[in-house]
Amino acid sequence: MSTQSEIWLDGAPASALPLPDRGLDFGDGLFETLLLHRGLPLYASLHLQRLRLGLEILGFPDCRTSVEEQLESAASAVQARGWRWTALRMTISRGAGPRGYAPPLVARPRIIISATELDRNCQQMSAPASLSVAAVRWPTQPLLVGIKHLNRLEQVLAADQCRAAGADETVMLDQSGRVVSVAAGNLFLLYGRQLLTPALVDCGIAGTRRRRLMEQWAPALGLAVIESTVSLQELAAADEVFYSNSLQGLRPVASLGERRWDSHEMCEALFRQYQGELA
Amino acid sequence: MSTQSEIWLDGAPASALPLPDRGLDFGDGLFETLLLHRGLPLYASLHLQRLRLGLEILGFPDCRTSVEEQLESAASAVQARGWRWTALRMTISRGAGPRGYAPPLVARPRIIISATELDRNCQQMSAPASLSVAAVRWPTQPLLVGIKHLNRLEQVLAADQCRAAGADETVMLDQSGRVVSVAAGNLFLLYGRQLLTPALVDCGIAGTRRRRLMEQWAPALGLAVIESTVSLQELAAADEVFYSNSLQGLRPVASLGERRWDSHEMCEALFRQYQGELA
Repeated sequence: MSTQSEIWLDGAPASALPLPDRGLDFGDGLFETLLLHRGLPLYASLHLQRLRLGLEILGFPDCRTSVEEQLESAASAVQARGWRWTALRMTISRGAGPRGYAPPLVARPRIIISATELDRNCQQMSAPASLSVAAVRWPTQPLLVGIKHLNRLEQVLAADQCRAAGADETVMLDQSGRVVSVAAGNLFLLYGRQLLTPALVDCGIAGTRRRRLMEQWAPALGLAVIESTVSLQELAAADEVFYSNSLQGLRPVASLGERRWDSHEMCEALFRQYQGELA
Repeated sequence: MSTQSEIWLDGAPASALPLPDRGLDFGDGLFETLLLHRGLPLYASLHLQRLRLGLEILGFPDCRTSVEEQLESAASAVQARGWRWTALRMTISRGAGPRGYAPPLVARPRIIISATELDRNCQQMSAPASLSVAAVRWPTQPLLVGIKHLNRLEQVLAADQCRAAGADETVMLDQSGRVVSVAAGNLFLLYGRQLLTPALVDCGIAGTRRRRLMEQWAPALGLAVIESTVSLQELAAADEVFYSNSLQGLRPVASLGERRWDSHEMCEALFRQYQGELA
């Protein structure tokens, strides 16, 4: 890979994180992964809204102004580099603190931004993905549903199992065996003209592209999306399956075990809505 | 506080962690907090056994030799400093890796050790603690029960709520409302001559002192410890309550809301067993 990378800490180029740091010690923080097109962050307001909710739930001091300034500054640097497509990860840690679980009374969050040039054209839809089913399941934790905090061991283990299974992505279930998502994205199922996505009640991340699909792309095609519980059997019975994530937009699903899907018409139609917004 | 601190990364004095690091990005790692007496790590084999189990479950390469060498080296440094009591935190991160959840095919774990001098005499039992009940509950995740991984947001939020409530420690429940632990320790309840501790089935950390109490201190007094489900009502109905952790050994509980406990005889008797081992 000939792609390049840059890291900033609190606005300055950096290669290391001062220790101690509560992001490392306890996963005490949040992150967002943004797609940048020629240095322009896409759907930034959706990312910042989810981040704000996370900051509230974790009781962080309000650092949104710094976040926005540093995002803008990193985006300018990416633009100056001439990178066409960039994955930008923004990590907000609660920062330093004394020994022990209790957060410091006055926390000074740290903002770590890493930008990586992508070597694919994100305006093109990715080839249909093969799915496995991960043995590791989401933890049940209604309090932290939807937000993108740093406690992500289940997705790490699921992605590892996915690679071992030779699949492109992997379905993750909740503790009761219901379908929640893939490891790095939200799932959508088509039955006739009805679109479904798993309801996020006990676990899961509320993706920015999931939200945009539900609020904009599907309505533009005259469709509503229902949030519902979904079993593996119901997933296999869908006429079409695809998933959303911030770097790929939407990606069709080709198979889950023996089940194969050849039609990706709905995913393609929604992806054209997405493409229209990228242009 | 006049206490001092030292940090090592992979065996060398350090003040920062190279980026990227999967410990920060995803909580992809483990930790142990050891008590050192005049530079001697206490119950090191129990800590290393739990760590080994965690390394297996997370699929880390075997880095136990490095862990033991670096622990020994940090302990020697602490001894040379003349610190009487030291809290030593050892964090094992999966190290660097490319973008995304999937671990690198060949991970090179990093070992971060931070040693902090303690300004209390750990041979003395701490004063009885007041308890609150945390609103935040443990997540349900049977796969990761017992091990001390870096995904610890619930305990962070519980410790924050505990401070806001003005209590010394806080009871944490599972998703069904059963008692699991305190934020930084395992609970024990006495009914007559019967000792109980919450069974760790869906969540919780299997403490080193919990294990030692069950295998050695209680049997030395002719007592067995039963692992059981425990409700808040059953907790309040106990004749005596105390908790274990690696820095305090055992600490008696004085109160939970309106409920007060004046007798701490069993905790004192078990603490004498612990003191005997420290000597």
